[in-house]
Amino acid sequence: MSILVVGSVAFDRIITPFGTADRCLGGSATYFAVAASFFAPVNLVAVVGDDFTDEDAAIFKGRNINLDGLQKVKGARTFFWAGEYGFDLNVAKTRETQLNVFADFKPRLNDVQRASEVVFLANIDPDLQMDVLHQCKKPRMVALDTMNYWISAKKDALTRAFQNVDLIVINEAEVRQFTQEANLVKGCRQILTLGAKTLVIKRGEYGVLMFTRDAVFAVPAYPLENVFDPTGAGDTFAGGFLGYLASCRQADDRELRRAIIFGSVLASFTVEKFSLDRLREITLADVQERYRAFRALTHFEDYS
Amino acid sequence: MSILVVGSVAFDRIITPFGTADRCLGGSATYFAVAASFFAPVNLVAVVGDDFTDEDAAIFKGRNINLDGLQKVKGARTFFWAGEYGFDLNVAKTRETQLNVFADFKPRLNDVQRASEVVFLANIDPDLQMDVLHQCKKPRMVALDTMNYWISAKKDALTRAFQNVDLIVINEAEVRQFTQEANLVKGCRQILTLGAKTLVIKRGEYGVLMFTRDAVFAVPAYPLENVFDPTGAGDTFAGGFLGYLASCRQADDRELRRAIIFGSVLASFTVEKFSLDRLREITLADVQERYRAFRALTHFEDYS
Repeated sequence: MSILVVGSVAFDRIITPFGTADRCLGGSATYFAVAASFFAPVNLVAVVGDDFTDEDAAIFKGRNINLDGLQKVKGARTFFWAGEYGFDLNVAKTRETQLNVFADFKPRLNDVQRASEVVFLANIDPDLQMDVLHQCKKPRMVALDTMNYWISAKKDALTRAFQNVDLIVINEAEVRQFTQEANLVKGCRQILTLGAKTLVIKRGEYGVLMFTRDAVFAVPAYPLENVFDPTGAGDTFAGGFLGYLASCRQADDRELRRAIIFGSVLASFTVEKFSLDRLREITLADVQERYRAFRALTHFEDYS
Repeated sequence: MSILVVGSVAFDRIITPFGTADRCLGGSATYFAVAASFFAPVNLVAVVGDDFTDEDAAIFKGRNINLDGLQKVKGARTFFWAGEYGFDLNVAKTRETQLNVFADFKPRLNDVQRASEVVFLANIDPDLQMDVLHQCKKPRMVALDTMNYWISAKKDALTRAFQNVDLIVINEAEVRQFTQEANLVKGCRQILTLGAKTLVIKRGEYGVLMFTRDAVFAVPAYPLENVFDPTGAGDTFAGGFLGYLASCRQADDRELRRAIIFGSVLASFTVEKFSLDRLREITLADVQERYRAFRALTHFEDYS
């Protein structure tokens, strides 16, 4: 099945205690598309300025990524984000945001994009997410991400979006903020009552929790000796997760769990270098090898 | 094999946003002993004041816990701790500590205690930990816990203690504080070079990581809808972990992983009610049922 991702392609400035990187390729749709393309064909819908060069676009080449939806606006600049991490490399503090071309982003899908079976609405205005969804022809699975800003600024629109998707991928703090519930499990159950069948909670260096109506699945993150830049880990996770699901015949509990692992595997590579530098160099064999490492990391036997 | 635990028996005042409990039974040795006694006989060595009643001691009765080492000091009061938790129930802020009888605690082991095959040195002065260890006859496995205070106040003594045990059970922040290394994996490897074969990292609501020379094992905590009081979760974990190991023929990788799960299971019960109220009511069958729930929570298959 093919995947549609609608989100940002950006240039980032990443400041960490271990180094700074400027004009890094970034953006939710970028990380998502590259990760998902390991498993399934991706239709990318995003906008860039004319500062976005062929060299920048090279990240998408030779992969299963259709760039017909990558609109280039002349005389304008690409979305820019600067973020700074502390020693724990946990939460980024935003230092600067320049929306640039993203301010007027109003995606119009073509027929190929509209026919995508799996849709990922990356973190954008929830009204825009719904506008994109309404353009789609009966997708088999729709997932969305969001952020604290939309929970504060557009909670009603976001609630409507939550009611219209199959799968929500958000982080722990967002569950608590949205539900005003201190207990994470109760918060997750509350969100599931809105309509989505699956809720995936990103916990950064602590891994991922998945709630469905019938089951809970939890997996730790892969412990890494070299973590340089957590930027894009969440979108990479979503890409690996939905990419794998798009390659499956059905998204049952068994495949959902495998998908969570593949998402975690891809994300574990992303953080090992700045920007998409590590994703750029890995192969499917590397991904499969780390999947097996995840098994070794987490496996335990029944008691005898 | 029998287990020796040397640590505190205490009265706690627990303040949470959901309620306050006063004169709760607490203390590291208390939680540890009750948890470990599900699997193996325990020799408890601790000290209380004459405010510690038979009713208080009832928690140990009908379990496999030898109380010959529970010294009662006349005219003195039991160790007292008051801690307050915020809405996330994560880290306790200490509001008050009264050492009382604990100030002069200088354990002298009898022959039965000295012959214990497994030794747990709960969080006390590292010099005292070593003093206890020197009284033991060739134990087969020695483990210790510590806290931020000893890392600041007695780092040399603590380093010597680390060099003389098989197993260290500490939390994430303590690894970083002790090693001054931001990356947890590197910090853990650094501590292992001191001599211990196994390092177990407690991560609270995020579960447990275990490092040995050859392997890393990670498990999430059990997601609970009702968390009332995290006090004692770490010592309960240590009790379940070492208790199970004491019941095994050998502590190989397979049994160490099972032990981590049993420790996590016991700890997941502790936090469901104040003090030891939940531990008091559960049976081995409850423990085994939640072990199976942990399997369901974490299991995923190899990719096909």
